[in-house]
Amino acid sequence: MIDFQSKAHEIAAAVRGGRISATEALRVSLARIEATNATLNAFTAVTSERARARAAAIDQAHDEGKTLGPLAGVPFAVKNLFDVAGLSTLAGSKINRDDPPARADATLVQRLEAAGAILVGALNMGEYAYDFTGENIHYGPSRNPHDPTCMSGGSSGGSGTSVAAGMVPLALGSDTNGSIRVPSSLCGLFGLKPTFGRLSRHGSFLFVADLDHLGPMARSATDLALSYDAMQGPDENDSWCAQRPVEPVTAKLDGGIDGLRIAVADDYFMVLGDPEVHEAVAAFAKALKTERRITIPEAGRGRAAAYVITTVEGANLHRERLKTRANDFDPAVRDRFLAGLMLPSDWLVQAHRFRAWYRARVAEVFRDVDIILAPATPRVAPKLGQVMMTLNGAEMPVRANLGLFTQPISAIGLPVVTAPYAERAGKLPIGVQIIAAPWKEELALRVARHLETIGIAASKAV
Amino acid sequence: MIDFQSKAHEIAAAVRGGRISATEALRVSLARIEATNATLNAFTAVTSERARARAAAIDQAHDEGKTLGPLAGVPFAVKNLFDVAGLSTLAGSKINRDDPPARADATLVQRLEAAGAILVGALNMGEYAYDFTGENIHYGPSRNPHDPTCMSGGSSGGSGTSVAAGMVPLALGSDTNGSIRVPSSLCGLFGLKPTFGRLSRHGSFLFVADLDHLGPMARSATDLALSYDAMQGPDENDSWCAQRPVEPVTAKLDGGIDGLRIAVADDYFMVLGDPEVHEAVAAFAKALKTERRITIPEAGRGRAAAYVITTVEGANLHRERLKTRANDFDPAVRDRFLAGLMLPSDWLVQAHRFRAWYRARVAEVFRDVDIILAPATPRVAPKLGQVMMTLNGAEMPVRANLGLFTQPISAIGLPVVTAPYAERAGKLPIGVQIIAAPWKEELALRVARHLETIGIAASKAV
Repeated sequence: MIDFQSKAHEIAAAVRGGRISATEALRVSLARIEATNATLNAFTAVTSERARARAAAIDQAHDEGKTLGPLAGVPFAVKNLFDVAGLSTLAGSKINRDDPPARADATLVQRLEAAGAILVGALNMGEYAYDFTGENIHYGPSRNPHDPTCMSGGSSGGSGTSVAAGMVPLALGSDTNGSIRVPSSLCGLFGLKPTFGRLSRHGSFLFVADLDHLGPMARSATDLALSYDAMQGPDENDSWCAQRPVEPVTAKLDGGIDGLRIAVADDYFMVLGDPEVHEAVAAFAKALKTERRITIPEAGRGRAAAYVITTVEGANLHRERLKTRANDFDPAVRDRFLAGLMLPSDWLVQAHRFRAWYRARVAEVFRDVDIILAPATPRVAPKLGQVMMTLNGAEMPVRANLGLFTQPISAIGLPVVTAPYAERAGKLPIGVQIIAAPWKEELALRVARHLETIGIAASKAV
Repeated sequence: MIDFQSKAHEIAAAVRGGRISATEALRVSLARIEATNATLNAFTAVTSERARARAAAIDQAHDEGKTLGPLAGVPFAVKNLFDVAGLSTLAGSKINRDDPPARADATLVQRLEAAGAILVGALNMGEYAYDFTGENIHYGPSRNPHDPTCMSGGSSGGSGTSVAAGMVPLALGSDTNGSIRVPSSLCGLFGLKPTFGRLSRHGSFLFVADLDHLGPMARSATDLALSYDAMQGPDENDSWCAQRPVEPVTAKLDGGIDGLRIAVADDYFMVLGDPEVHEAVAAFAKALKTERRITIPEAGRGRAAAYVITTVEGANLHRERLKTRANDFDPAVRDRFLAGLMLPSDWLVQAHRFRAWYRARVAEVFRDVDIILAPATPRVAPKLGQVMMTLNGAEMPVRANLGLFTQPISAIGLPVVTAPYAERAGKLPIGVQIIAAPWKEELALRVARHLETIGIAASKAV
């Protein structure tokens, strides 16, 4: 009745309708992990014992005639920077192995489980989230299910791998500069990076407090909406989390796109990138019946500001570890952090000053449009270990430049759904960013859902 | 009926009661400026023409039977970092002379005039407010009326001089690290540094956006309250200004001190400083019938954080001027800014990180007490030109260390009234900080008023 291809909302509907048990849904997930994880390396911990107990409890509740939650029986997994009670929160590092086990689950894990979902484990990631590749010197790379010799993208690499391989229908990632959107694009998934401040970060290992977002990755827009609704709302344990009422989107998801003003980002977002990337954006625009273009002003400088803030503030978070455990870092991560500690302070102040200006200018753009389309990554998944890539005839480092198109958007906390272009038979996946104004997740999700309904966006486990 | 000794509320009462005209009150002020400013150097511009027109308008309104505002006919002046329509906003610099004249008055100037006060001019200050001495290489030092060979204190030096000399009963200053409280202490005045974010800064030349406060200096607590009430309230032109309703204090000013939990700051605030400074604090505590002591935890590090934030963020504000007009700065100001541009960025991030911690700890202290007393300056006014001073047997620079006791308080935006110790016959003045929890200006003002009523705090123009 369900298999590794099943989506979260299909599993929940089957479990809630009594057509399968949560235990059976979990069995499918654990079997797929068993079959594929040794090759693909998505998980750093599988919490099968806890998951079985949870599934049994859901099945018992069902037997007792209780109403099950909207995500009843949906297996999910989380990037290993989320606290999971009983596990040390690795955040992709070797150093954090020495941390005591977390005493409680992260808020978002608690909220998904409160909605009936079942945590099955913790996922591989780039060290301390400072990564776009999904590679990891300590735990090995998470591999792309569409071609295991290729990158999953990062830093939420295990999240991308696990969902694209059908190990779970839903995973949580984090996105500071693109770490949900890059693996969503390279693995062919739907990913939601909500507005900065929307979802609680309590119980997660931060990277850059000023830029970090948490969010879901799945194989349908509906699953993003369902899980997002389950996770929304203020959290007294997280003062960064907005004091806004829950604004459910699931019921509005099929609202269509009538009246939405949609445009394609030009200028910066049309310069670099392989042709197929821009073809995907054009296909989305055509399906959405728009020929409009719009300029996000100074996006390149927006990216530069995000770079400086990331390097400096991320480094500050790790200053004690850099002093005492320098040799236990991935050298490629450590050396960027060490540089960050020593950048002139004026760069940081100027980056924040510029960002405030940029945020205000982009807010003006959203007076004229509701949705902006832009590429998610400048290319499909590179080969594992690949250091350089050629974009528009110029050689440049893979690691930094996979985030070329995502950084200018997260720099100012805009909500984005990354949706996979459907018509890619025989080719590696590629995604498109559907960007909305702050707090307008609903619009981006509705557009993604519309594209999915008409078959232009689609995701399939492989 | 009134003279240069008259306080703002006395002048307003006389003008509102028709016992003198606003024109006569203005004449007294302008005559005193004429008589003393050549020696004391408080003003950089006297706006007598505008002031006479304003006084005439008030007198006409009175003749027509209209009700006059609470500050009717009160002459006042502002530190020359406030915009005054028609004047270039110097902020104590030579460079800003090339700026076009301001097209409108600063919000606080507008609000005081709306309450009936009369602007008579702009006041000397330390260059770009980076100063505790009141000295200025371009415009000469503002001199202390209690001894014109001594410093007024800074950076609101002209504000201190003008009120202490009786040129005006009321002046506005700014306080980033102590620039209202230091000259209030050295010139023997009452000064209010409100809670960070309380008063609009629209139309003022900033120094450190994160630390700048504007506020009044006067010769009575009543005058602080009257002018503060006239200036309070949100300002659509200043997004930093809190969206809080006006909380008038004047009517509550004589509420006394019953039930207030008052303590003297120990630890950091008792280590340095001349004995007479601590005697003033002890006299206040005795008059307030408290023997309680309390620790503001890590105040020294709080000061260090304010130092780093000031140097770096202040420097960023001036980065273009530092590139193009370096030789037009006061070298002592310029060199600190240049250092600020190049400090390692990690210092700045750490300063902000520490400050957040410190703010939370001090908030806990205010669960146990309502008012904390601390010295305002470690000594009375030094001689003009004096570079070093001896505190507790150690030589240290005057310029930086006059703010020893003020910096840890403004670093976290606490409201403070500085009140002058009355029993100083034949000696230079000294002030005491009366510190309250955020948004509790009323309590600090009530304590200051109580001390004034019983004669322990007093200010007199000389």
